Amino acid sequence: MNTNFAIIGGDLRMIKLAKLLAKDDRRVYLYGLENHAEELETIKNIIFCNTLNQALQDAKIIIGPIPFSSNEKEVNTPFGKNVISIEELLRNISSKMLIAGSISPQVNELAKKHLVQIVDIMKREELAILNAISTAEGAIEIAISNTDKIIQGSNVLILGFGRIGKVLARKMQALSANVTCAVRKKEDIAWLKAYGYQVNNINTLAEELSQYDIIINTVPHLVLTKRRLEYVKPNCLLMDLASKPGGMDETRIKERGLKFIWALALPGKVAPVTSAEFIKDTIDYILEENMV
Amino acid sequence: MNTNFAIIGGDLRMIKLAKLLAKDDRRVYLYGLENHAEELETIKNIIFCNTLNQALQDAKIIIGPIPFSSNEKEVNTPFGKNVISIEELLRNISSKMLIAGSISPQVNELAKKHLVQIVDIMKREELAILNAISTAEGAIEIAISNTDKIIQGSNVLILGFGRIGKVLARKMQALSANVTCAVRKKEDIAWLKAYGYQVNNINTLAEELSQYDIIINTVPHLVLTKRRLEYVKPNCLLMDLASKPGGMDETRIKERGLKFIWALALPGKVAPVTSAEFIKDTIDYILEENMV
Amino acid sequence: MNTNFAIIGGDLRMIKLAKLLAKDDRRVYLYGLENHAEELETIKNIIFCNTLNQALQDAKIIIGPIPFSSNEKEVNTPFGKNVISIEELLRNISSKMLIAGSISPQVNELAKKHLVQIVDIMKREELAILNAISTAEGAIEIAISNTDKIIQGSNVLILGFGRIGKVLARKMQALSANVTCAVRKKEDIAWLKAYGYQVNNINTLAEELSQYDIIINTVPHLVLTKRRLEYVKPNCLLMDLASKPGGMDETRIKERGLKFIWALALPGKVAPVTSAEFIKDTIDYILEENMV
Amino acid sequence: MNTNFAIIGGDLRMIKLAKLLAKDDRRVYLYGLENHAEELETIKNIIFCNTLNQALQDAKIIIGPIPFSSNEKEVNTPFGKNVISIEELLRNISSKMLIAGSISPQVNELAKKHLVQIVDIMKREELAILNAISTAEGAIEIAISNTDKIIQGSNVLILGFGRIGKVLARKMQALSANVTCAVRKKEDIAWLKAYGYQVNNINTLAEELSQYDIIINTVPHLVLTKRRLEYVKPNCLLMDLASKPGGMDETRIKERGLKFIWALALPGKVAPVTSAEFIKDTIDYILEENMV
Repeated sequence: MNTNFAIIGGDLRMIKLAKLLAKDDRRVYLYGLENHAEELETIKNIIFCNTLNQALQDAKIIIGPIPFSSNEKEVNTPFGKNVISIEELLRNISSKMLIAGSISPQVNELAKKHLVQIVDIMKREELAILNAISTAEGAIEIAISNTDKIIQGSNVLILGFGRIGKVLARKMQALSANVTCAVRKKEDIAWLKAYGYQVNNINTLAEELSQYDIIINTVPHLVLTKRRLEYVKPNCLLMDLASKPGGMDETRIKERGLKFIWALALPGKVAPVTSAEFIKDTIDYILEENMV
Repeated sequence: MNTNFAIIGGDLRMIKLAKLLAKDDRRVYLYGLENHAEELETIKNIIFCNTLNQALQDAKIIIGPIPFSSNEKEVNTPFGKNVISIEELLRNISSKMLIAGSISPQVNELAKKHLVQIVDIMKREELAILNAISTAEGAIEIAISNTDKIIQGSNVLILGFGRIGKVLARKMQALSANVTCAVRKKEDIAWLKAYGYQVNNINTLAEELSQYDIIINTVPHLVLTKRRLEYVKPNCLLMDLASKPGGMDETRIKERGLKFIWALALPGKVAPVTSAEFIKDTIDYILEENMV
Repeated sequence: MNTNFAIIGGDLRMIKLAKLLAKDDRRVYLYGLENHAEELETIKNIIFCNTLNQALQDAKIIIGPIPFSSNEKEVNTPFGKNVISIEELLRNISSKMLIAGSISPQVNELAKKHLVQIVDIMKREELAILNAISTAEGAIEIAISNTDKIIQGSNVLILGFGRIGKVLARKMQALSANVTCAVRKKEDIAWLKAYGYQVNNINTLAEELSQYDIIINTVPHLVLTKRRLEYVKPNCLLMDLASKPGGMDETRIKERGLKFIWALALPGKVAPVTSAEFIKDTIDYILEENMV
Repeated sequence: MNTNFAIIGGDLRMIKLAKLLAKDDRRVYLYGLENHAEELETIKNIIFCNTLNQALQDAKIIIGPIPFSSNEKEVNTPFGKNVISIEELLRNISSKMLIAGSISPQVNELAKKHLVQIVDIMKREELAILNAISTAEGAIEIAISNTDKIIQGSNVLILGFGRIGKVLARKMQALSANVTCAVRKKEDIAWLKAYGYQVNNINTLAEELSQYDIIINTVPHLVLTKRRLEYVKPNCLLMDLASKPGGMDETRIKERGLKFIWALALPGKVAPVTSAEFIKDTIDYILEENMV
């Protein structure tokens, strides 16, 4: 497969991804990553470009940042020198494939208009599962460094038993914590028993909240409401791994003076190299499926 | 909830279930379990009946065997003295609920005709998950007693990563075996990595089969074909946990003289008391859902 | 190292050991294993001998059975056709090295008299540790097959925290049992906490015995006395892994009709091939230390 | 037992210890912890004293810092306002018991002279074992936050298999790292096999060092010599948990620009409350043994 790539903008993971692709003998054109030019431009197969067009010209697959944009107008370029307009990017890659993360409906529409085949890599189930490993390790690091007790033997409540809940529960149990998961569905209750965790009903949580040393949320909606927070004991560590609105009432947490950490985007922070490897694996799958 | 039960036929699990229900202060009428009369009839809340009708009369919920019948005509009664016709049973419980296991389409039809609300407990996801625990423990017992090496450090291949595959892989890994799972779906591959197992593609299994000391199938269709069996090493233990056709070519296995164990219905054999507990939990769920 | 071996008598492990040594390009003379002649005599480097002298003549290292003898007069030869007198054996190998297992003081004296350098392989710490793996797996097999509940979630008490206790506790915990160990020394208590097990004082065991589903002894003296056995619940599984007097009052166990299994010499039964490998490793160490 | 305590100097663990003892209904006199007066003086059973003598007067057991002193002249008082001379302290507690940590031979001599019964709590085996839990968790936190890959699947080498090595190896393996331990003794090699770790010979380490992502030393003498460091790969994380001289050649590490963390006294940093609990348990043991 002789496919050239362009990587446009992005964070540390894109730097690592460029290296992995280059090592795999793919040609990689870079733009919007100028701050890392020195580190990358001597590497075989990597070409630093002076203009966006130059980067796009010979590339068949365009890789964008994760997340793609924070304002729906410009591509995220924390390591870049120049502003890159989404409109301009899309106009120049019609009929090519763009792979990026957390793409908004507007950008999706625009891509269609420009006949760009756009793939949101963050919607790929396999990447989400793999990222759960890094998220779980990051949560463990936070738990160890933000409590004044050992994890071993402490009572840990995990809200939710999706991808992150499953991997985190396993690792916490492996470190000899007493792990309880709060869920709703009968099947999840059965799985919790099968894996040897304790079970709580996430819909009726109340007094039992007082027994936990660490409570970690993985559910993307409010679970620890103002009322429920009253039951949490004063020295409990609250950690929220869910994005956007989060699952814990931050206002009430502050009023009570509880220890609270909202830990977002852990994979890129805790393990950028592993994250880049997982992204590369997923890109390989996407190309395979599209027979590129 | 003041509900009377009748248990009609069945194996050791039904004996244990009767005790659990009685302990829970439910009245339980028994018929078709005569061989265990002595053990049961002194227990409070348990009433041994002399006729089918007597057992059914005051009961609201009828529990039948798992599996319900082996010939679609009579209820399975390994511990009973009399033949119980399915037709007769159904005729006498119209408008009541019958809970039993592995019910055939014919019996389902017949139940409809007699206005019996019939529930196949073996189709309940939560019971299937819980049964996977017992199955996994049974498989471990078989593996230890049928090899002349220790499990620790041996190469174990599990075909499939469904309910049984998930629980068995975890326990085998916990015993320090090198666990590989063979799957097809990208998501399953990601889960295998997230849980720290090695991965094989179940569709392209070939030479790599020669490295395994134990191969356990959990998939309900032929995986270890005649051709693939050639790669299996002579002292490999083959275990099939899948019902009906099974996943291994038994003819070829015999020709090659390989060690083979087809282990079916392990939960009832390995842990009848636990199985009865799981059945009771599931019956509680069913009643709750039907607001009985 | 060009050393010839003679294997004289012994069980399945000696057959496997012969193969391992032969594979390692050592010449191995066999006597007292006639029942397995057919299986072994075609293997390169293995020579079946018709007389004891013939077997001993060119051998530098003599391997005897484990245990060496059951009557202090004759070598144990469960697979042999002829009686082998210890006296005769020792007389013929003066100035050579004899490696065997569980050697009595009398035999030791006799060996000295005949100037035989005798090594009791069962007194080698490294072999005892490795054998604990097989013993633990065997105990798990027994536990699964002799209870009517699952191991997962059951309360398991292990008496003692020596070699077998350590390995068994770990594997039982890995299978999601609730593991308690009963010990005496403060250091052991600290280790139990460090490894996440629950702790009991082995000297004051009493009422708490009633909570266990499985009790496994590893201590070579009486722990479960008549008085203590009263606290054990009727359906508890009692397993004794300790040799000679054992740690449980068998008379009282029988009177109470408790389920009891005295499981001795598990490594040779559960995993003869692995046992032979461990024996070979230990022989290699012994030769290395003696610069043979 | 109606024993009064005095706590003289020390760090956060002594604050937590004071609370634990007070909760246990012991009277606790404090001196040399002035910075935490506000937090402690309202607690029942705790008495803040203005002079050393006042604190010592009614106390039977004197608790000193861990470590006791850094200059052999004054007691360590990071939270105190006044200098406390060791000589003065000892002079005032003759015939009483002083429990503190890491006591030098000189201080021991002085204590004898003043007829003080002095106990070095850091020499207590059970405390050292329990502290290994906190140290292991601290090492895991450091490993996660100082690598750009996940721990899962990475190659971790632990030098030594003493208390810390045993607990750390177990936790690292539980997090799905590939754990190798480097040891010397045959018994340790057997234990490593029994626990399912990979084995290296610590005396002959060389080329194989290049395969590790993380190398953690627990041995109190130089293992990673200048020569051996050449084999370590550039992005390997080096962590030393051994005190005083340490086990890694720091000069060479700096020259090569390797990532290196010398993590000392982790229990007090990572889990001060748990550490205080362990100290209290150990004090209870000491008093019990001395029948105080």
